[in-house]
Amino acid sequence: MNRVEEPLLSVSERRIATRLCVDAPLGAGQTVGLAPQQAHYLRTVLRLSTGADLALFNGRDGEWRARIDALGKGWASLAVIDQRRAQQPEPDVWLVFAPIKRARLDFLVEKACELGAARLLPVFTQNTDVSRVNCERLRANCREAAEQCERLSVPEVAEPTGLRDLLADWPADRHLLVAAESGHAPPVAEALARAREQAGGRAGVPASAAPWAVLVGPEGGFTEAELDALSKLPFVTAAGLGPRVLRADTAGIALLACWQAWLGDGDARPPFRG
Amino acid sequence: MNRVEEPLLSVSERRIATRLCVDAPLGAGQTVGLAPQQAHYLRTVLRLSTGADLALFNGRDGEWRARIDALGKGWASLAVIDQRRAQQPEPDVWLVFAPIKRARLDFLVEKACELGAARLLPVFTQNTDVSRVNCERLRANCREAAEQCERLSVPEVAEPTGLRDLLADWPADRHLLVAAESGHAPPVAEALARAREQAGGRAGVPASAAPWAVLVGPEGGFTEAELDALSKLPFVTAAGLGPRVLRADTAGIALLACWQAWLGDGDARPPFRG
Repeated sequence: MNRVEEPLLSVSERRIATRLCVDAPLGAGQTVGLAPQQAHYLRTVLRLSTGADLALFNGRDGEWRARIDALGKGWASLAVIDQRRAQQPEPDVWLVFAPIKRARLDFLVEKACELGAARLLPVFTQNTDVSRVNCERLRANCREAAEQCERLSVPEVAEPTGLRDLLADWPADRHLLVAAESGHAPPVAEALARAREQAGGRAGVPASAAPWAVLVGPEGGFTEAELDALSKLPFVTAAGLGPRVLRADTAGIALLACWQAWLGDGDARPPFRG
Repeated sequence: MNRVEEPLLSVSERRIATRLCVDAPLGAGQTVGLAPQQAHYLRTVLRLSTGADLALFNGRDGEWRARIDALGKGWASLAVIDQRRAQQPEPDVWLVFAPIKRARLDFLVEKACELGAARLLPVFTQNTDVSRVNCERLRANCREAAEQCERLSVPEVAEPTGLRDLLADWPADRHLLVAAESGHAPPVAEALARAREQAGGRAGVPASAAPWAVLVGPEGGFTEAELDALSKLPFVTAAGLGPRVLRADTAGIALLACWQAWLGDGDARPPFRG
């Protein structure tokens, strides 16, 4: 069966189960080599062999269909066939988070990637009781989650920094939405509705127009001094998330979900679906 | 130091770190015995001893301050002192979900509890590849998450059922919000804004007025037949969650977060905060 000749509209052809993120440039006729783990994954976990199709993306050139030309122990060579999707602009929203314990952090990072965070920034606050962050692990998690959720990009993972330094260097035009469990913060629905109105009144519009970030503190919360400093910054919007005290990971996921729904690309639909 | 005499307004007194859910009725002057694991937790994990204060709730009588009267190996006796919060009505939103693998299910259940789901209903769909659900484990997770997030109730965990049976017995007045990754579903912001308008136009209002549920399918998605059946039901509202294909757990958490923000108790603030 020559899959190349099939129309892109047939259901079986339109959904390619295996998606891989690569570093190489992608274009018709190009040959792409895979990293050893990726080749191992195709050969040993998925048990694919020569001739199988998969989808490739690199965060710059959109998504391409490719075919396995040769596959060995720890290496693979792929032929890039045709473009499935062009690269598109994505919402410019960062997640700034105080590091938490590993299992919860892995989860938060996966969810943040699925929910379209463009950049993840670990930040040390006074009550943060995790002292090290394995950024390479977070990057690998991001890559895997991006492959899984059909994103065309992988969130960038910044090196950890202190909250004070982060705020001192903060780009003035980037709004910062902070989950506030105390004080007089408006409910998140109200805060986002106001932002949407200011940005032009329609969901999806501000995604490209205004850069945003969401910030969640550590399990112990921010200190009074930190909250005080945050509340004085002109780019900060505080928002409440209801009467329950959310864990840090839950707060981050909830804020991102609400942000995407009201200010991000909640209007868009997944690709290749009926 | 006699903590009973202290005003409820001092910060250190207002926040009691340890909260436990008990089955016994709660009222001033009552004596409450703890389950063996709870007594073990107080004694061995938290290293509390006689005279320490904690907060108790049972889902019916609000939250009460209690003091450890006696504590032994696997048993504890508490004296209930005074009420910290009266029981309050909570949003009537269920989470209906196809069972997923254990680590993700634990996570989903914890998050659903934090996000205020009143009831969790595991449902088997055609593509569900997990065949058993340990409901007792889910109930224990719910209890722990409720203690942690300062809820006054613990979500009820229903016994698993099939999707067809569930829908056949569905209460007609309960709206069902379904995460749809294909088809012409409106974005979740639009679906919720419409529902809010129909319910009276203000966040928080429908929480007590209209019962809701959110439904997420298994990792493999719903089948065409299931989607077809769902789309014909008068109580179903389909909603899209943007262009990325979310895992089942992410979709459930995102829907609950958005629902609470726009139709639930997103307006309320956590108790005992400045």
